[in-house]
Amino acid sequence: MSQFVLPIRVYLEDTDAQGVVYNASYFRYLERARTEWLRAHGVEHNRVREQEGVIFVLVAIEVRFTRPARLDDMLYVTAELSKLKGARVILDQSVYRESPDGELMCRGVAEVACLDPEQLRPRRVPAVLVNALRQ
Amino acid sequence: MSQFVLPIRVYLEDTDAQGVVYNASYFRYLERARTEWLRAHGVEHNRVREQEGVIFVLVAIEVRFTRPARLDDMLYVTAELSKLKGARVILDQSVYRESPDGELMCRGVAEVACLDPEQLRPRRVPAVLVNALRQ
Amino acid sequence: MSQFVLPIRVYLEDTDAQGVVYNASYFRYLERARTEWLRAHGVEHNRVREQEGVIFVLVAIEVRFTRPARLDDMLYVTAELSKLKGARVILDQSVYRESPDGELMCRGVAEVACLDPEQLRPRRVPAVLVNALRQ
Amino acid sequence: MSQFVLPIRVYLEDTDAQGVVYNASYFRYLERARTEWLRAHGVEHNRVREQEGVIFVLVAIEVRFTRPARLDDMLYVTAELSKLKGARVILDQSVYRESPDGELMCRGVAEVACLDPEQLRPRRVPAVLVNALRQ
Repeated sequence: MSQFVLPIRVYLEDTDAQGVVYNASYFRYLERARTEWLRAHGVEHNRVREQEGVIFVLVAIEVRFTRPARLDDMLYVTAELSKLKGARVILDQSVYRESPDGELMCRGVAEVACLDPEQLRPRRVPAVLVNALRQ
Repeated sequence: MSQFVLPIRVYLEDTDAQGVVYNASYFRYLERARTEWLRAHGVEHNRVREQEGVIFVLVAIEVRFTRPARLDDMLYVTAELSKLKGARVILDQSVYRESPDGELMCRGVAEVACLDPEQLRPRRVPAVLVNALRQ
Repeated sequence: MSQFVLPIRVYLEDTDAQGVVYNASYFRYLERARTEWLRAHGVEHNRVREQEGVIFVLVAIEVRFTRPARLDDMLYVTAELSKLKGARVILDQSVYRESPDGELMCRGVAEVACLDPEQLRPRRVPAVLVNALRQ
Repeated sequence: MSQFVLPIRVYLEDTDAQGVVYNASYFRYLERARTEWLRAHGVEHNRVREQEGVIFVLVAIEVRFTRPARLDDMLYVTAELSKLKGARVILDQSVYRESPDGELMCRGVAEVACLDPEQLRPRRVPAVLVNALRQ
């Protein structure tokens, strides 16, 4: 289970009047990295919904911010599978600056649930996706 | 056709590292005011989609920014019907600071289209909505 | 230490293509409630920076999502002081639907640090603010 | 004066409950493209502020939306210098899907002003930047 890294540039839209990256922006970054991690394993939101009849939704997340990122910074956002069981996918995620082994900006854990798209009830991750995500 | 005014507080999420309200935030403000203007005329996004089978979508907008708004400012965002014909609704919109007749932050014109929600093709605004919006 | 409640309407900007409120939007809601909780205790971001020489910055947050909110929902976002010691302010926060004692959408804990605005290093919360926030 | 093109992936954060890209998201896309266009000409927000004592701020924009972009789409956002005179930079911008000569999603004109960062008053674009941006 290797680590996935997505490079993300900080734009004006991500910053706030305190001169740093606004806290909710990190949750957008972490979601982009999870989406690209899924895509890197052949799992696209739209296709999975049509072919497997499931959607992936964030159900819990915790993040600790250690240093502030700023305008024009290049960030490297990671996603690493920590646990995949039943309807749950747990991912460890971090944001580094300048390089994938640069200064740590924040670190967190995301819990994603596999749901049916109509009732939003938990659905065991389909075997084909389990195999894909574990690679 | 009276003017509608929505008070909006500026939060950190709306500002950027230049210390002012980020340009795209104004488009969120203008959309909130259009939505509340619709609601004030009895037109709710979800209900209209179910009952009348149409959705309202922004198809063009132009905005000129005259002064920068800042963190903690109270803004007053207006929406005033300028034209309603066929599938088109044209609205004049402005953003003022501190009071509805305070300093002008920006002024714009929004063109909203009435569409069917599946094909996203233009649909004449239903008569019941025309009457509601003209009041 | 009473509970603070901020009513927030869900707009299009807050939702995503899965038809529900996008996860990062909740972090914007929670921050708005913290800001208004500060303001309700006489503490404004800009004024505090000028008069007390400190800023308040989110350093850690954890949130569990229990039900999805949707377009046009009225949400009630709470902030309640849990702990205030040294440079740290811990707040319990929840989001309810339709009324302040309605269905729970999500629940979380936010850790806010008091920092000097230049070096972004921890600064003991000034006594005058401690008194204000504890009321 | 060649055309600059920035590829941008559509994420959940950019979409809304109508299933398409939310209108304000396009203004974030257009700003990212203007920022990368500046960077491609050696002009970085932070560096220009320090070295030349100016900032670039959007003062007017008009956009017409022609087709809706959706989740997972790859978009190509352009920026092309149309006019540069005094304190004003006018850019033509478009968003295409799938390829830089794919389907047109929207087209617009952005007017950017060169300002001093303190008073936010117009400042003639410094000659060194004029030369850089015209290349």
